[in-house]
Amino acid sequence: MAIRHGGTMKATFLLEQAMPKIDIANVPERQGSDYPAPYGQPVSARIRQALGRAGGLTDVGVNLMHLPAGSWSSQRHWHTREEEFVYVLSGELTLLTDAGEQPLRAGDCAAFPKNVPDGHHMINRGEVTAVYLDIGTRCADDTCNYSDIDLHLGPEAADYSHKDGKAYR
Amino acid sequence: MAIRHGGTMKATFLLEQAMPKIDIANVPERQGSDYPAPYGQPVSARIRQALGRAGGLTDVGVNLMHLPAGSWSSQRHWHTREEEFVYVLSGELTLLTDAGEQPLRAGDCAAFPKNVPDGHHMINRGEVTAVYLDIGTRCADDTCNYSDIDLHLGPEAADYSHKDGKAYR
Repeated sequence: MAIRHGGTMKATFLLEQAMPKIDIANVPERQGSDYPAPYGQPVSARIRQALGRAGGLTDVGVNLMHLPAGSWSSQRHWHTREEEFVYVLSGELTLLTDAGEQPLRAGDCAAFPKNVPDGHHMINRGEVTAVYLDIGTRCADDTCNYSDIDLHLGPEAADYSHKDGKAYR
Repeated sequence: MAIRHGGTMKATFLLEQAMPKIDIANVPERQGSDYPAPYGQPVSARIRQALGRAGGLTDVGVNLMHLPAGSWSSQRHWHTREEEFVYVLSGELTLLTDAGEQPLRAGDCAAFPKNVPDGHHMINRGEVTAVYLDIGTRCADDTCNYSDIDLHLGPEAADYSHKDGKAYR
């Protein structure tokens, strides 16, 4: 009966294996940002679901983002070490960089290589919520530089600061 | 006239900046795989567009995949160092792992953490081409393990080999 017993053991083991499909409806929704006031206001309606984290990933983030009409994706910024990529699933966004503006509609995407000092963000100037995937590497020694405001986030501190290093909170 | 001159210089600079939106229609399509025969056959109709690379990314791959009816995404495999994530844009795929099968439809996604010895792949058992994003970190010291076949790809060699290390070609 060794074979039948082995079969039973295997069936039990199979049932205990994690199924890799992510149950998006049960991934927590996090609204807004961690920016110090007043910089969080334009981003306050943004909703993020950390799909990659929910699936056990640590080196790359894959976030499902819901950006209501009028909202910004973030303050305009660029990273020294982290790469970013966005893919629009529905709605329409306006991408702003030093190069100007570009519309991003469903099926459009954009990449932001590391250490290119050209800040980017997206604004939803449409009338419906835009949905997009926000993909990015995770680097502990990254510095995030903000193009338009007195904000800095680097590996030397756990929280945002002014560009001269002074704490906001 | 220093101010006007500065303004002109800045405008010229802006025009020369790269626009970050990716022109997907002009990203090369690569069909099939690099697997040695006969393992490439089930993957031979797969089409990949390397969107992340087209946008200058090196640490994370973001690939737009077209998988015709009957095609496999890959041979079933798992990585020691690289993380993977798939997000289905249209069509329907069947995801196969040690845990069994799961359907992945438009809006569904799955994550494959590194160093979890449970091989995965997807098969298009539907009647229309499935389109999905295949996202993954890039690690030079990664080993790719194949669950069902005598195939191995590790950092010690530039090409696939048998599991005992013998070369295929």
